[in-house]
Amino acid sequence: MFQSFDDTSEGHLSPERVMRLRDELKRRNLDGFIIPRQDEFQGEYVAPYAERLRWLTGFAGSWGLAILMRDRGAIFVDGRYTIQVRKQVDTSIFTPRHLVEEPPAEWLEKELKPGEVVGYDPWLMTADQVARFEKAAAKAGAQLTPVDSNPIDAVWTDQPARPAKPVAVQPTQFAGKSAKDKLADVSASLEKSGADAVVLTQPDSVAWAFNIRGADVAYTPVVLSYAILHRKGEAELFVDGAKLPEDVAAHLKGIVRLRTPQDIEASLANLGSSKARVLIDPDWAPERIRAILTASGATIVPGPDPTRLPKARKNPVEQEGARAAQKRDGVAMARFLCWLDQAALAGDQDEVTVAQKLAEFRNAGGMLKDLSFDSISGVGPNAAIPHYRVSKASALPMKKNEIYLIDSGAQYQDGTTDITRTVILGEPTREMKDRFTRVLKGMIALSRIRFPKGTCGSQLDVLARQPQWIAGLDFDHGTGHGVGSYLSVHEGPARINKSDRTPLEPGMILSNEPGYYKEGQYGIRIENLILVREPEAIQGGERPMMSFETLTLCPIDRRLIEPRLLDPEELAWLNAYHARVLREVGAFLEGRELDWLKQACAPIAT
Amino acid sequence: MFQSFDDTSEGHLSPERVMRLRDELKRRNLDGFIIPRQDEFQGEYVAPYAERLRWLTGFAGSWGLAILMRDRGAIFVDGRYTIQVRKQVDTSIFTPRHLVEEPPAEWLEKELKPGEVVGYDPWLMTADQVARFEKAAAKAGAQLTPVDSNPIDAVWTDQPARPAKPVAVQPTQFAGKSAKDKLADVSASLEKSGADAVVLTQPDSVAWAFNIRGADVAYTPVVLSYAILHRKGEAELFVDGAKLPEDVAAHLKGIVRLRTPQDIEASLANLGSSKARVLIDPDWAPERIRAILTASGATIVPGPDPTRLPKARKNPVEQEGARAAQKRDGVAMARFLCWLDQAALAGDQDEVTVAQKLAEFRNAGGMLKDLSFDSISGVGPNAAIPHYRVSKASALPMKKNEIYLIDSGAQYQDGTTDITRTVILGEPTREMKDRFTRVLKGMIALSRIRFPKGTCGSQLDVLARQPQWIAGLDFDHGTGHGVGSYLSVHEGPARINKSDRTPLEPGMILSNEPGYYKEGQYGIRIENLILVREPEAIQGGERPMMSFETLTLCPIDRRLIEPRLLDPEELAWLNAYHARVLREVGAFLEGRELDWLKQACAPIAT
Repeated sequence: MFQSFDDTSEGHLSPERVMRLRDELKRRNLDGFIIPRQDEFQGEYVAPYAERLRWLTGFAGSWGLAILMRDRGAIFVDGRYTIQVRKQVDTSIFTPRHLVEEPPAEWLEKELKPGEVVGYDPWLMTADQVARFEKAAAKAGAQLTPVDSNPIDAVWTDQPARPAKPVAVQPTQFAGKSAKDKLADVSASLEKSGADAVVLTQPDSVAWAFNIRGADVAYTPVVLSYAILHRKGEAELFVDGAKLPEDVAAHLKGIVRLRTPQDIEASLANLGSSKARVLIDPDWAPERIRAILTASGATIVPGPDPTRLPKARKNPVEQEGARAAQKRDGVAMARFLCWLDQAALAGDQDEVTVAQKLAEFRNAGGMLKDLSFDSISGVGPNAAIPHYRVSKASALPMKKNEIYLIDSGAQYQDGTTDITRTVILGEPTREMKDRFTRVLKGMIALSRIRFPKGTCGSQLDVLARQPQWIAGLDFDHGTGHGVGSYLSVHEGPARINKSDRTPLEPGMILSNEPGYYKEGQYGIRIENLILVREPEAIQGGERPMMSFETLTLCPIDRRLIEPRLLDPEELAWLNAYHARVLREVGAFLEGRELDWLKQACAPIAT
Repeated sequence: MFQSFDDTSEGHLSPERVMRLRDELKRRNLDGFIIPRQDEFQGEYVAPYAERLRWLTGFAGSWGLAILMRDRGAIFVDGRYTIQVRKQVDTSIFTPRHLVEEPPAEWLEKELKPGEVVGYDPWLMTADQVARFEKAAAKAGAQLTPVDSNPIDAVWTDQPARPAKPVAVQPTQFAGKSAKDKLADVSASLEKSGADAVVLTQPDSVAWAFNIRGADVAYTPVVLSYAILHRKGEAELFVDGAKLPEDVAAHLKGIVRLRTPQDIEASLANLGSSKARVLIDPDWAPERIRAILTASGATIVPGPDPTRLPKARKNPVEQEGARAAQKRDGVAMARFLCWLDQAALAGDQDEVTVAQKLAEFRNAGGMLKDLSFDSISGVGPNAAIPHYRVSKASALPMKKNEIYLIDSGAQYQDGTTDITRTVILGEPTREMKDRFTRVLKGMIALSRIRFPKGTCGSQLDVLARQPQWIAGLDFDHGTGHGVGSYLSVHEGPARINKSDRTPLEPGMILSNEPGYYKEGQYGIRIENLILVREPEAIQGGERPMMSFETLTLCPIDRRLIEPRLLDPEELAWLNAYHARVLREVGAFLEGRELDWLKQACAPIAT
C-alpha cells in the first residue's frame, strides 16, 4: 500500500545489463557513460522509468552516481550507503567510492585516459555539475559529451512508462494565495533581478506556483514538469495534456499557456532568439536547459529559484493548515503508540508490521493522501542507523527492553508532517535514560529559543548539541530541515545545521530533530516540526524576538526521561507541551486510548 | 604616561587645511582625493605622522575615510562614531555618512561627475578597496588615479617624523619557536599554495615571523615594516637600519637580508622580472604592492597571509607565557578593585583618575611594557557606550549606586591581556542584577562548552546570547576576538560572533565578552580571555572534545549576581572559578588586599 518493504535490488542482473550498455556505447563511439541517480528534475524521489542507476547497478539508495567505462567502472555513494552498496552492487564492475572523500570529478581527473570520450545525459545532470566534470576530464586530456538520447533507455527493454497520474488543483482554501497572485509576485522579483524570464526546473516550485499537485512520484505530490515564467506575458507550463482533468485545465486556463513536454526546447530557443535575460539556478537546472539557452542567444542570469523563499515562508492559511494536519497526525500517532505499548511484545510484531500499523492509523483519519517518505522503523541496533531503510529482509522483531525508533510522516492536503518518536519496550538502562534526556534537552533548547531577525540555522544548531557536547557525545546529521506545505518533506532553502547561512524567516516550517546513535546497540531521535514566528515583544524585554511555535503534537516517552537532568525551565516546557498534547489530541480520543494519553502526558514532578 | 586622556581634535583648523590641500590638488590636476584613516600597514593604531585624516578633518576615531572634492566632501564612519563625527568635523565641508549603509563606493558612483579625476595614495589603500572604488568611479564616468606622493604630506608643514624607536628581539624563551623554524614553516606552506614568495604587509606578521618587537605605534609592539619571504632563499626585511641595536642586528643576521624601506619597490620588481608567483592578501596588501608586482611581470597568488594561522595558534611556551601574564595582571586587577571599593566614593575620583590608578597598579608589577589599548572607563551612562573613549572632558565622577565598567589590558613580554569587569558603586537595582546575571550566564556557557574539531565561532556565539535573547535582550557587538602573544590585542583570523567561519584551533586565545547596554543609564560587560585546548576524552563520553581554558583571573562582582538565576552547574563554575582566582592570585597578596580578595571570591551558596 503506502510503503514497499521489499528488497527489489536486481544486482544479480547487473553484469548482463552492463554488457548490453557497453555494446550500445560502442555503437555510439563512446568510451564511457555517466549514470546519476537523478532524473530530469533533481528531486529526492524518481519515477520507476528513471531508476536507471538502480536498473544498471542494483544500487537502491536515494543518492548515487556511477561511471561506466569499457573496461572499468565506479559507483559513488555517501556515508549512508557505504555498506549497502557492497551488498547490492557487483563491485568487480563498479568500484565503490565515497562521494565526498573521493568525488567523481577527482575520479575523472585521475582515471580517464587522454583521448577518451565520456557521454552524459544533459537532462539528468545540472549545469554546475557538468561544468565541474568537464574541467576534471579536460585535465586528464579526455572529453565529456552530451548524448541526444539516453543509451540506457535504448537497452532497457522493459523500461516502465512515464507516470501519467492525473493532476489536481490545490485550491486557495489550502494554498492561501491564488496562482495568479503568486505569478505576479515572481514577476515583480524578476524585475528586481533584471531577468526577463525564469525557468522553473523543480517540480515542487511548479506545483507551488500554479497551485497544482500530482502523483508522479512517491511521497511528494508533484507533477513532473518544467515551467517558464515571463516577467511580462503569460507563463508556460510543459505538461502532458492527458494528465489534466477538466477542472484542472479550467484552473490553469488564463494563468498559463499549456504546452507539451516536448515543446520546452522550442520555447527555450525562442527566449534565445529574443535575446532574453533568463534566470536559472545552476545548482539545480539541467545542463541541457543552460545549453539551449546559451546556444540560442539568451543571457543566463544565474541565481536562486525565485519561488524558493516565498514557498518556504508559509502564509497564514498554510500555517493554519499545518496546525490542523499536525493535530490529525497527532491523533494517529497517539492511537499508534497506545496500541504499541500493548501489542509490541504481545504478538508477532516486527519493524515492518509496526510501521504498517502506523500507516493504518494514519489512513483511518480519512484524510491521508500518502506518506511523506519511507518510514524509518528500527528496533535496537537498527535504530542506531540514522537513515535506516527497513525491509522484510532486515526487519528485527520487537524485543523486550529494547529501544524502538520510528521516523515517519504523512501528506495531507492541508499540510505535510514529519515526526520521530523513540520508545522503550520495557525497562531502559541508566545510559539510555541519560542519552534520551540529553537529546530531549537539546530539542527543548531549540524549541524555547527566541532570536533576532537575521539569525540563521547554523547559529542555533549548537543549542540542540550542547547537552551532548558537554558529555563528549554528538550526532552526525543536521538538526533540522525545511518542510513543505503538502509538498516536499525536505524543502529548502533554510536548514538548522552546522553551516547553513539562510536567515530564518516568519512562516518557515523546519524540523527539530536531534538524535543519539550507539552503533550496534540503540538509537534515539526526537523530532517535532516547528514554525518560525514573527518577532514579538517579550514581557520585560527591549527587543522584539522571533520564536518557534511547536506544531507536532505527540507525547514524548516519559519512561526514558531522567528528570534530574532537566532544569526547572526544561521541565516546565515539557509539562506544558504534554498538557497541550492532552488538550488538543485528547479531544479526539476516548476510552482506552484517552486513558493511555492521559498517563503519557501526566506532568513530571519538579 | 600610558594613555592620553586629552581631547586633541583640531577640527577648528580644518577649513584652512582643506583650502591648502585643495590648492595642492589643483596644482596636480586632481579634482579630488581620498583620505583613509589607515597608514601603509592597515593596523588599528597609526603613528602621529600618519594621522592624515585627523589632521585634515579633526575626526579622531580609529576608523574612517574622507573624500575631498573641489566643491564638496564626505566623511564615512561606522556606528560607533556617528555622534562624535558631528562634534569634531566641519560638516559644511565633509558631509557625514554611515560607512556601512552609505559606503564610499556608493558615494563615488552617485556623486562623481563624468570626467572627474580623483587621486588616492596607493600605499594607504588595499588592492581590494581600490578595485571596488575604481569600479564605482567608472560607473560615474569618472576615474581614480594613484599619486606618487601624498599631497597631504606636501601641505602638512609640521608633520611629525616617522617613528624611529629601537627594535627588540623577542627571545625564543617567550616566542617558543625560533624565527628560523617559523620561516621554514612558511616556506613549506608556500610550497603547498604554489607560490614562490609572499609579501608580509602587516607588521604583526613581520614581528611574529622574525621574533622581533618594536614601539612604532601605541599599544601594539610592532615595527612598522614589510618583509618578503621566499620559498627558496633568504627572506628580506625592509626596515631602517638605525632602528636596529647591535643585538637585534645579530639576531637577524643569518635569517634575513636587511634592506631599507625604500628598497621594497626594487625587490618587488625583481620578483616580477623573475616571473615569480607571489602570494599577497588582497584584503590587506597595499594597492601599490599589487601594482608593482603586476606591472613588473609577477603572477599574483591571492590568499590569506600564511603567518595568520600559526601566529593565532599559540605554542606551549606562548600559552605558558599567557598564563603567567594573566596571573600578574590579575594581581594588579585585584589590588585595583580592592582600592576602588574603598576609594571610589571617598574622594575626588572620576573615570580618568580611576583608569590611571589601574595603570599604576599594572606598572607596579614591574613587568609592564605598555597598555594593550585605550582603557574604556565608564560610569553610569558612559558605561552604556560599548566603545566609549574616556577623556578629561567626558569623564564623569564616580557616583553612589552607579555601575562602573572598565575594559583594559596590558602588554607584557610573555603575553597580552584584555579584561573587562563591571562593578556596582553601592547598591544595584533589581534590573541591574538581572541583566548582570544574564551576561554572566552567557559568559559561563561559553566558558564551559565542549566542541568537536571544525567548530567555528559563529556556531558558539549564541551560547553567550541565549540568556538575553530569551528575555528580549541582546548586545550589538561580537562576543569574542583573537588576542596576540605580546602583539595585537585584536588578532585574526578567528572570532566569536554571528558570522565568523574560521574553525577554532588548539592554542588560539580569544576573548569571551558578552555585554548589555541600556542607553543613557548603564552598561555591563564581563570579559575573560579563553584558550582553545586540544580535543580531550570526557569521562563517560565517546568523542574527544575541544574546550576553553579560562586564562583571566579576577573576581566577578558578587553584589551584582542574582543567584536564583543561576543553575547548579553555573553556580559550580562560578564558585570554582573564584576559588581558583583566590588560590592563584591570592598567593601574591597580603593584608587588606588579601582580605578583600577572600570576600570577593567567597562561594555563593547553592
